[in-house]
Amino acid sequence: MDNKVFSEIFARAREQHPLVHHITNYVTVNDCANITLCAGGAPVMADAREEAGEMAGFAGALVLNIGTLNPGIIESMILAGNVANERRIPVILDPVGAGATRLRTESTRRLLEELKIAIIKGNAGEIGVLAGADAKVRGVDSAGITGDPVTITRTFARETGITVVMSGATDIISDGKRILLVENGHPRMGAISGTGCMVTSVTGVCAAVEKDRVMAAATALAAFGMAGEQAAAASKGPGSFKPALFDAMAALAPEALLAGARVRSA
Amino acid sequence: MDNKVFSEIFARAREQHPLVHHITNYVTVNDCANITLCAGGAPVMADAREEAGEMAGFAGALVLNIGTLNPGIIESMILAGNVANERRIPVILDPVGAGATRLRTESTRRLLEELKIAIIKGNAGEIGVLAGADAKVRGVDSAGITGDPVTITRTFARETGITVVMSGATDIISDGKRILLVENGHPRMGAISGTGCMVTSVTGVCAAVEKDRVMAAATALAAFGMAGEQAAAASKGPGSFKPALFDAMAALAPEALLAGARVRSA
Amino acid sequence: MDNKVFSEIFARAREQHPLVHHITNYVTVNDCANITLCAGGAPVMADAREEAGEMAGFAGALVLNIGTLNPGIIESMILAGNVANERRIPVILDPVGAGATRLRTESTRRLLEELKIAIIKGNAGEIGVLAGADAKVRGVDSAGITGDPVTITRTFARETGITVVMSGATDIISDGKRILLVENGHPRMGAISGTGCMVTSVTGVCAAVEKDRVMAAATALAAFGMAGEQAAAASKGPGSFKPALFDAMAALAPEALLAGARVRSA
Repeated sequence: MDNKVFSEIFARAREQHPLVHHITNYVTVNDCANITLCAGGAPVMADAREEAGEMAGFAGALVLNIGTLNPGIIESMILAGNVANERRIPVILDPVGAGATRLRTESTRRLLEELKIAIIKGNAGEIGVLAGADAKVRGVDSAGITGDPVTITRTFARETGITVVMSGATDIISDGKRILLVENGHPRMGAISGTGCMVTSVTGVCAAVEKDRVMAAATALAAFGMAGEQAAAASKGPGSFKPALFDAMAALAPEALLAGARVRSA
Repeated sequence: MDNKVFSEIFARAREQHPLVHHITNYVTVNDCANITLCAGGAPVMADAREEAGEMAGFAGALVLNIGTLNPGIIESMILAGNVANERRIPVILDPVGAGATRLRTESTRRLLEELKIAIIKGNAGEIGVLAGADAKVRGVDSAGITGDPVTITRTFARETGITVVMSGATDIISDGKRILLVENGHPRMGAISGTGCMVTSVTGVCAAVEKDRVMAAATALAAFGMAGEQAAAASKGPGSFKPALFDAMAALAPEALLAGARVRSA
Repeated sequence: MDNKVFSEIFARAREQHPLVHHITNYVTVNDCANITLCAGGAPVMADAREEAGEMAGFAGALVLNIGTLNPGIIESMILAGNVANERRIPVILDPVGAGATRLRTESTRRLLEELKIAIIKGNAGEIGVLAGADAKVRGVDSAGITGDPVTITRTFARETGITVVMSGATDIISDGKRILLVENGHPRMGAISGTGCMVTSVTGVCAAVEKDRVMAAATALAAFGMAGEQAAAASKGPGSFKPALFDAMAALAPEALLAGARVRSA
């Protein structure tokens, strides 16, 4: 692919410094805030129903992450999502652990029904369960999927009208027509908690500045993956990897995506 | 200024190891706990209404931070604040995002009305909005203020009887009469989430051991700013900056403030 | 002691990758997730009453930590604990701050009454208060205990049928009959927030793969203490200590416990 588009989107993120409103979990929330800053965005977290909608109205993108959800949080997500939908602010959904418990699966289905989601990003198990495939989730980790992941991703996207990202060693992105595969990343990203949540935040940053959801997602996955590659080279283990990941993300120049993004059409 | 007073206050913080009770947000709470330890204090976080007041009664200072507030949290803040007020335990308020949403602005006004706040610390937008100036807040960041920040800070302090800290490249501290300007710090502090919350925690540590609110706040801002300067020199980006910030804060000797604190009267 | 048993338990943890469900506080939750990964486990955090029990049913161990509790969280702990008890999944309790406030003390007593706890881990003040000894807790720190800690620990274990861990410079473990003392660790572990919570998570990982509670706890305390020793040697202060701690824990080979575990019978 011509990586120029990714470089341009990432440059725009750094220039426009978009506000990214998060309603997210309390496990990785600090990582989400910091990676948003490193990617060029301005993070804000506000989950009370009394302000979730108002805050969403000011944002360039709304990130919904169900990592530690409860019924009250879902209500706030609906309120914020409705405001975002009205104002054409893209809503990015990370269905953490969907498939592991009924609450997570059913809450995700409700969000998908009641809101217009721009991009959904999950692991193979999460996306597989939501797509109706034979898939399993153990805690917040994928425990396998039967069938061709690319087909499942594309079909789910086509049926829902949502841009779907199935993350993995190779990330799959589809809007039902186009399919992009992103090869960036490093196994050490799975050795720490939060990389899945963080890439969703970066996707929010990119979606705030680019209407083409597939290209926005690919930019985020490639950029974050490149940061992960650099951080792995600069670290000794998962502990030193995390500060190195933030350093690499913050230092990543848009032009670096020209040579570094490993994205191809399938 | 003669920096001896700052050095002495900071030495006392390290000697007395004051308990600093926090009712704070879940984004930066871990950073607040760690910086409190690094500054010599003992952090505790307890926000349930069933124990917030009881815990506050044991503390040397109470830090209230509305970064991820909801109505229940505000009730706990009132309960804890009332106990602190009765026992003359200083209450430090960080009105994160006041001005961005009605909930944040109105909750802050309620805390200011119902509690006797010793020190309030916010960015130019937050303090400006609360002071009735022409100011804006975007998410949790200042989006500008019209008018002279020093005058706004001093007037707000005079009218409320609260020691006001308007943080920025130059921090402004006033109790309505005195005005101190603190020049310590480094731009990289704005590249991570949580430095604003952390300096409020350090202010809690210092206020627990020094009755003069202006001097307590100046000590905290100078010490934390010095740690930021040292951490910036020792780091490559925002990721490595954060561990370096904790290292620098923990290693900061009270005597270092004699030469390092850059505080002047305005 | 023959350290082979600890090495074998730790090897099993890394092989089996047990799911460790946490209902824990929002201060140190990210550290708990990461140390669980570094120790070989798979962390999941789910505290809503709508899913806490269901998620617990899939886990190898359930960790309950009352660091920032409220009445709703206690209900979720009871629900999850009941499921764990039915399915013989070990429940590990960290009574953070028990003794500091009535809510914490009474909630801990309720958990001890209504659930079958496998292992309880607290500092001298927390365990002392719960054991009915003359002990004090200040915030979340031990403020001293009167009497012989070993006797208090053993007696409390004998009376409750719970394996008790009293953490400190020397950790004391007893099931009422056996007493093990673990000497691993480093003072710098007390300079950061979260090491107490983290070792409880590691205990969960080990208890998921070893039925002998005393041996599981000793393995966790020795392994985590060894990681702390190595991290202290590799760091300059509390900030750099934390990433080094995760690196050391992740790199710790089971065989390293053969020479490195400093565990003895009392």
